[in-house]
Amino acid sequence: MIIIMNQSATKEQIDNVEKKLSQLGFKTHPIFGEIKTVIGAIGDKRLLNTQTILSMPGVENLVPIMKPYKLASRELKQVSTIVEVGDVKIGGDELVVMAGPCAIENEKMLMDTAVKVREAGAKILRGGAFKPRTSPYAFQGLETEGLKLLAAARDATGLKIVTEVMDTRDVELVASYADIIQIGARNMQNFRLLQEVGTSGKAVLLKRGIAATIEEWLMAAEYIMAAGNPNIVLCERGIRTYETATRNTIDMSAIPVVKEVSHLPIIVDPSHAAGNWKYVGALSKGAIATGADGLIIEVHPDPSVALSDGPQSLRPSKFAQLMSDLKLIASAVGRTL
Amino acid sequence: MIIIMNQSATKEQIDNVEKKLSQLGFKTHPIFGEIKTVIGAIGDKRLLNTQTILSMPGVENLVPIMKPYKLASRELKQVSTIVEVGDVKIGGDELVVMAGPCAIENEKMLMDTAVKVREAGAKILRGGAFKPRTSPYAFQGLETEGLKLLAAARDATGLKIVTEVMDTRDVELVASYADIIQIGARNMQNFRLLQEVGTSGKAVLLKRGIAATIEEWLMAAEYIMAAGNPNIVLCERGIRTYETATRNTIDMSAIPVVKEVSHLPIIVDPSHAAGNWKYVGALSKGAIATGADGLIIEVHPDPSVALSDGPQSLRPSKFAQLMSDLKLIASAVGRTL
Amino acid sequence: MIIIMNQSATKEQIDNVEKKLSQLGFKTHPIFGEIKTVIGAIGDKRLLNTQTILSMPGVENLVPIMKPYKLASRELKQVSTIVEVGDVKIGGDELVVMAGPCAIENEKMLMDTAVKVREAGAKILRGGAFKPRTSPYAFQGLETEGLKLLAAARDATGLKIVTEVMDTRDVELVASYADIIQIGARNMQNFRLLQEVGTSGKAVLLKRGIAATIEEWLMAAEYIMAAGNPNIVLCERGIRTYETATRNTIDMSAIPVVKEVSHLPIIVDPSHAAGNWKYVGALSKGAIATGADGLIIEVHPDPSVALSDGPQSLRPSKFAQLMSDLKLIASAVGRTL
Amino acid sequence: MIIIMNQSATKEQIDNVEKKLSQLGFKTHPIFGEIKTVIGAIGDKRLLNTQTILSMPGVENLVPIMKPYKLASRELKQVSTIVEVGDVKIGGDELVVMAGPCAIENEKMLMDTAVKVREAGAKILRGGAFKPRTSPYAFQGLETEGLKLLAAARDATGLKIVTEVMDTRDVELVASYADIIQIGARNMQNFRLLQEVGTSGKAVLLKRGIAATIEEWLMAAEYIMAAGNPNIVLCERGIRTYETATRNTIDMSAIPVVKEVSHLPIIVDPSHAAGNWKYVGALSKGAIATGADGLIIEVHPDPSVALSDGPQSLRPSKFAQLMSDLKLIASAVGRTL
Repeated sequence: MIIIMNQSATKEQIDNVEKKLSQLGFKTHPIFGEIKTVIGAIGDKRLLNTQTILSMPGVENLVPIMKPYKLASRELKQVSTIVEVGDVKIGGDELVVMAGPCAIENEKMLMDTAVKVREAGAKILRGGAFKPRTSPYAFQGLETEGLKLLAAARDATGLKIVTEVMDTRDVELVASYADIIQIGARNMQNFRLLQEVGTSGKAVLLKRGIAATIEEWLMAAEYIMAAGNPNIVLCERGIRTYETATRNTIDMSAIPVVKEVSHLPIIVDPSHAAGNWKYVGALSKGAIATGADGLIIEVHPDPSVALSDGPQSLRPSKFAQLMSDLKLIASAVGRTL
Repeated sequence: MIIIMNQSATKEQIDNVEKKLSQLGFKTHPIFGEIKTVIGAIGDKRLLNTQTILSMPGVENLVPIMKPYKLASRELKQVSTIVEVGDVKIGGDELVVMAGPCAIENEKMLMDTAVKVREAGAKILRGGAFKPRTSPYAFQGLETEGLKLLAAARDATGLKIVTEVMDTRDVELVASYADIIQIGARNMQNFRLLQEVGTSGKAVLLKRGIAATIEEWLMAAEYIMAAGNPNIVLCERGIRTYETATRNTIDMSAIPVVKEVSHLPIIVDPSHAAGNWKYVGALSKGAIATGADGLIIEVHPDPSVALSDGPQSLRPSKFAQLMSDLKLIASAVGRTL
Repeated sequence: MIIIMNQSATKEQIDNVEKKLSQLGFKTHPIFGEIKTVIGAIGDKRLLNTQTILSMPGVENLVPIMKPYKLASRELKQVSTIVEVGDVKIGGDELVVMAGPCAIENEKMLMDTAVKVREAGAKILRGGAFKPRTSPYAFQGLETEGLKLLAAARDATGLKIVTEVMDTRDVELVASYADIIQIGARNMQNFRLLQEVGTSGKAVLLKRGIAATIEEWLMAAEYIMAAGNPNIVLCERGIRTYETATRNTIDMSAIPVVKEVSHLPIIVDPSHAAGNWKYVGALSKGAIATGADGLIIEVHPDPSVALSDGPQSLRPSKFAQLMSDLKLIASAVGRTL
Repeated sequence: MIIIMNQSATKEQIDNVEKKLSQLGFKTHPIFGEIKTVIGAIGDKRLLNTQTILSMPGVENLVPIMKPYKLASRELKQVSTIVEVGDVKIGGDELVVMAGPCAIENEKMLMDTAVKVREAGAKILRGGAFKPRTSPYAFQGLETEGLKLLAAARDATGLKIVTEVMDTRDVELVASYADIIQIGARNMQNFRLLQEVGTSGKAVLLKRGIAATIEEWLMAAEYIMAAGNPNIVLCERGIRTYETATRNTIDMSAIPVVKEVSHLPIIVDPSHAAGNWKYVGALSKGAIATGADGLIIEVHPDPSVALSDGPQSLRPSKFAQLMSDLKLIASAVGRTL
């Protein structure tokens, strides 16, 4: 950690900062420039409230040297994590595709979709039972009934299932049905929910918040890991920018950045990122070529009657064609699908 | 609602959209341009899943004419809402200042701060008992103990108290102590929490999400109002942009925009927006002159020992000076403090 | 074009808007909803100053139906444009890679780089003679001397050359050397420069502005085309967002969006987008798989002595390896390299 | 300057960085932490291409300690600069308001506006002769004819005049008419234009780029100052964010930040920031209370016939009312108008 003193900091202010750091267990190394002084401090920043230092008179800035996350970092664990969900492995050479409707609407549509995405090569069925909706007047999901339909689809097809939880009070219920619990973008910093899924024993699909930095996203993973759950799959789903041609701006560079600083697997959700099924194919191919470990794609048997997010859903036939195209890309980057 | 058909839409596709709208209870008015067709549709969009239409073949875009929120809109209620918390009125001619520490640390610091901010003219004491922290290793708040200290400070000073709730399971507890329940920026779209505070019977301070549009923010208010609670105070606290000179970018234009489209009162949090006490004074004055109904300001007796957000906290003496400056601004815009 | 009147607009205000539109040559179609009135207007919006309408009493908003650009739009020209630079075709089945140093530093380094990137399969040599630098104290480029070195490298290797122009006064000079004139991100809305290269007779590489929407970018292309030059290659090079893990956020979705709305070819600059050579490989692969028509990549024989942008430059050996990897991706998406 | 070596940096890599810094005239101070090494380097960073260091093997990051700008910084010049334009002083206790139409359309409208804004208390007349327009088909300004009309309005009213220049070839012409030359937001990093106005001998109104950081903005000022011109007035005019309720998001916190790090005066343009005349009054008051040295406001005798930016223009009567309101705010913050 480096503390930068401002130009007009007095000798006494510099001494006070050194003294405080020393009390907090840091070794200090001041460097006196012609105009400003900086103080190097060696010790465990995680034990420190850095704002204590930042608030001291004469301090201009504080530059951390180490990442704020530890369990999620590749500095700590250099081997890439493979999250196992039954016999499905996420993060290995084989890519994993999750597919299904945005919201579960009824038994028939879910079962039809499940059968078709399995045929096309998906390993995991997605489907929302609890839906975070911007409007209180929109369809909020089938809730427990939806979870039961998901479980039935799993029984019928052998697919694993992933579904979102929005409320700490529902974690136990959702965990009793799902193979993977999803934390949605809006709840990425719902810290109590993170802690709760951290004790659920189920793998977690952690979506990136709509305006979260990669560092904040990994800190959210750290919350779950610190609560005892190491089985986390990160999901890039687009970030909010000024551009309105797509619903969000997919941040493809997050893939190599995450691979460098963390050992956790990362998949991409092109459906929510683009908000338009026309772009899902191109972005899916791009994500795999960039190094993603998989995809989560919305598929609906008839998008024009979908109760949620129809415009971004692929029909099963288009999804099957895309899966076939993706096999070629996977092979070009040394992976399988 | 206007439906824009794309350039290559067929007659049949246009007919199908009209037919579907008609089934859904809308009256349609097609306009045939030389290149594109648009369809005007009259009816209650809130009853419609617009994505049903957006997913139909030939549809390029859908433009809503009415706002998606209703209870929160000035279209519905033209008189400005005044939220009453005991004898404190928020949204009237008199400005309301809330002040206090970021986190409650112990009885003495809270009581000292409470006494001093009351002397300076604050009406409401802020203080966090449950703290949303980016790091799982940071101080998470005194929880119930903190609520008790707040209540004791209220008893001693007569100030009202505002404090944050982060978990649906804690709403009843927090409501049993607080005069105003705060929904933090990270939970602005924690829809279950919004619904829960909507039934709590207490006034709600609804912070804007870090990357929320004004429309999404008002939709969050709509969630609370739809659950039965009309006593909402909006709080602008800075949005995330590319600029790093301040922690967030305070969106001052949100003040006149909110005043135009909604009847709800709006206050500003310059401390979290700037992340630096040096800018709090200038931004507080600016917010009042721009038309805010009040402020929420962090005050700490000794920021350099604060357990949370010290760098953005004012010392009580600086806060008192600021309050005195603000009286002049209030008067210049025809209000009192 | 749709004009939305506000809720309190009077009959007279609605009539006035219709009358004005009619004077301006539009046919109007009012639709009277229960709460608001909208007016459809058929005619050529490009002839209209829409702000005239927006400023009229009672008008709430104006929604354009047609795109503001015409020459650059696929609505006008449905066949994809192939820009020919001698025997190099950009926008066809064969991908085109441009490579070379950020700035031209001296004859030897440029010639060495040129030979190596040609061997690896690049078709076009990039190199800056005029450099836009954030600091007035930084190296500003070799200017005319740099142009001569580029021309010599072209003579020696047969590569085409692309280089940036920053000043209207230099367009003639740069055009006399370059095969493709580059408009940098900072000058994307330097409209006089756009007009000047529009009359230069040379192909133009038009970089996206650092915070330009896709629509503004295509309007910049429209400026060049309206001045008589249809040979434009668009270049996505990352946009400014709140994320700081990479220098800019590469907007991969711009590729399918541009392909949908425009007929112009689009390439990607992963070096400037990421600002870090470590991410250039992954993003290059991603861009090709997403559908880009080519890449422009910084290559420097020794990045640690580069006078500009060393950290984002690849060594020639890494570039050669990447080109070999890219051939596989190209083939997987039905293209050649 | 602090160089952070990465975790796996070898002793040899650390030595090489120290050696290189030493060759470049820096004194080095390595600090060996348990996990990472950092190297403090004392010397003049402006003489250094920091990328040379960033590209060296083993280097993770480089943290500058000093600001990259010098002439524009308050570190160098502690007394606030007052820019004198004839007898008008910008940056002193008296606030300065510039007002007038977006574009000059004809003699009558300009003269009428000039007379009215002078009566209301404006000191400087604004008006565009060269207009940067997003569309090549929009009105581009009266050019030289417009400059002549401005000069005539100055003669008639005694107001100073400010107008924009877009092309290096026009700087001499514009400087021969204008009292203050405006650099528009789109040209903030048109470095050649900055250099050219740096030698013009006229004061410069430097608008912030639409996505420029405060640091980049001050670097643009540095370009002008390094070319010999110290008379710069900064102008905050809104930045691009995801929020669409206003055209841009006015960054009010830029006012106290600029006041802290620079000695240059700063004014605010609420008209372009908001893009809507309804918000101009509130934001003008807010800007003055926040500490701005003045305002630049669009005023048009009949916004509904304006050739440019009508929706954001105030009528003269509203402008006069606003000026009267602003006097009260000015007085509340210890200034005059």
